[in-house]
Amino acid sequence: MRLGIIGEFGLIEKIKHWVRTDGSVIKGIGDDCAVIKYSKDEYLLFTCDALIQDVDFRKSDNPYLVGRKAIAVNISDIAAKGGLPRYALVSLGLPKKSSFDYVRRLYQGINYWAKRFKINIVGGDLSGAEKVMIEISMIGFVKKKSLVLRSGAAENDIIFVSGALGGSIRGRHFAFTPRIQEAQYLVENFKINSMIDISDGLLQDLGHILSLSKKGAVIYEDLIPKSKDAHNLEEVLGMGEDFELLFTLPFQEARRLREKRKDFKPVGYITKNPGLILVDKNLSRKEIDIKGFRHF
Amino acid sequence: MRLGIIGEFGLIEKIKHWVRTDGSVIKGIGDDCAVIKYSKDEYLLFTCDALIQDVDFRKSDNPYLVGRKAIAVNISDIAAKGGLPRYALVSLGLPKKSSFDYVRRLYQGINYWAKRFKINIVGGDLSGAEKVMIEISMIGFVKKKSLVLRSGAAENDIIFVSGALGGSIRGRHFAFTPRIQEAQYLVENFKINSMIDISDGLLQDLGHILSLSKKGAVIYEDLIPKSKDAHNLEEVLGMGEDFELLFTLPFQEARRLREKRKDFKPVGYITKNPGLILVDKNLSRKEIDIKGFRHF
Repeated sequence: MRLGIIGEFGLIEKIKHWVRTDGSVIKGIGDDCAVIKYSKDEYLLFTCDALIQDVDFRKSDNPYLVGRKAIAVNISDIAAKGGLPRYALVSLGLPKKSSFDYVRRLYQGINYWAKRFKINIVGGDLSGAEKVMIEISMIGFVKKKSLVLRSGAAENDIIFVSGALGGSIRGRHFAFTPRIQEAQYLVENFKINSMIDISDGLLQDLGHILSLSKKGAVIYEDLIPKSKDAHNLEEVLGMGEDFELLFTLPFQEARRLREKRKDFKPVGYITKNPGLILVDKNLSRKEIDIKGFRHF
Repeated sequence: MRLGIIGEFGLIEKIKHWVRTDGSVIKGIGDDCAVIKYSKDEYLLFTCDALIQDVDFRKSDNPYLVGRKAIAVNISDIAAKGGLPRYALVSLGLPKKSSFDYVRRLYQGINYWAKRFKINIVGGDLSGAEKVMIEISMIGFVKKKSLVLRSGAAENDIIFVSGALGGSIRGRHFAFTPRIQEAQYLVENFKINSMIDISDGLLQDLGHILSLSKKGAVIYEDLIPKSKDAHNLEEVLGMGEDFELLFTLPFQEARRLREKRKDFKPVGYITKNPGLILVDKNLSRKEIDIKGFRHF
């Protein structure tokens, strides 16, 4: 059987069954980060992400921006669990003919976010490779009371996004700001039931929350904030790499949030019954298949 | 400037200057693992290693063995600091046409060591890629009193290796046993001043200890245990991927170790003055250039 048939998410389901974890693992495979017991008040978060030339970027892309993105996608995963990043390893695969300046600029991009979020780059690995590959693994910490998983969405929760969606591939996906500040504000001041960062697209990432929470949702086309970079609704719903936060919280909490902040936008609500309903401009409801970017 | 000119170790020196770490980092770039403050009695160890198709293995190699090696090289790094491995993330880059069975067998290899050493596989990342890439990042823990760095070698220390060297490329490099048990025995019972796992070759890895400890060494050709797989002395001294422990300890401790265990072999001693002297069968001394496998 080829991987294309089983698919990325089918493969993740299989892998879940192949590995075992002990009681120190609060959450293993299947969320933005692994969550591990750490101290009386905190959990340790552990995550990694790779950017691969000709899949995630081109050799001609500005290496400073590639480095920025390589670390930002990991920071975004830690933000979405309510945590703060602290330590990172940088693993580089580099063709022999790479220039020293290329690597220096990659690191300038990595350092841009490392400095702003006080992340220690503590090591890594260098390999020869035919194509450039940057893998960053990251450790962060989250207060136990602040931890938010994908799986906690409850019936009647209001669904929010932290910013405009779609068209990120036209440049924003390199230069986005990981939503650490926004996520910290949310978990410090509100009861957030579930959260994820939008990397695969609104519909697909909402799909992750729904399947892990065993719930459904109704979302309203008109409510979804649309980036000026998006060419059409399909890009808003499914393009991915927006790296905005998608989160759900109880109705009363949502009202309180709306009074304080206008930059978080409600887009729909969680239902008891599974399935994802999109309500269009004419208020007609259609059940939609969850789609988005899959790696195979 | 091309990377080939500055070289792998030159690049690592540059990267050290590009990054900053805070007081919670006991040891950052430049050892087998990063060492981070953790609890009253323990440090956290953090490391990663990538295997890349057509650099570290071929697509035709048994994926079970590739998976075994991918996790074993990380375990070996943690062993060499005196620690025990606990958590791992597995990041895979896979061509679309990969078979499901290939990935299943990779994981069987990863699980082989994960089960034996009670390592929790807690997550990872899947990417499409033109070539197979396996990157594992690992967290372990070490008792503060057991931590051994590369930089602690002292004058008159005796230099030991944990097993026969050379020719590992003829098969052993896939199926080696990470020296967790041996390293635990050493740090629990002896004062070990410096340690490294031999991944780049005896001379080069001894060179890491010498340059970080600001010392020199004399080693004896006849004393070095030679693998039956090694075709010549050059392979014994410089082939790499043996993944045996190379460590140094004071003379009195060395004598005590020799009384208890015959499997650890003394190969020479540490000198105050820099430089590496190899004494051959005829007791003639020659100063040698440190060489080994470099990635560019």
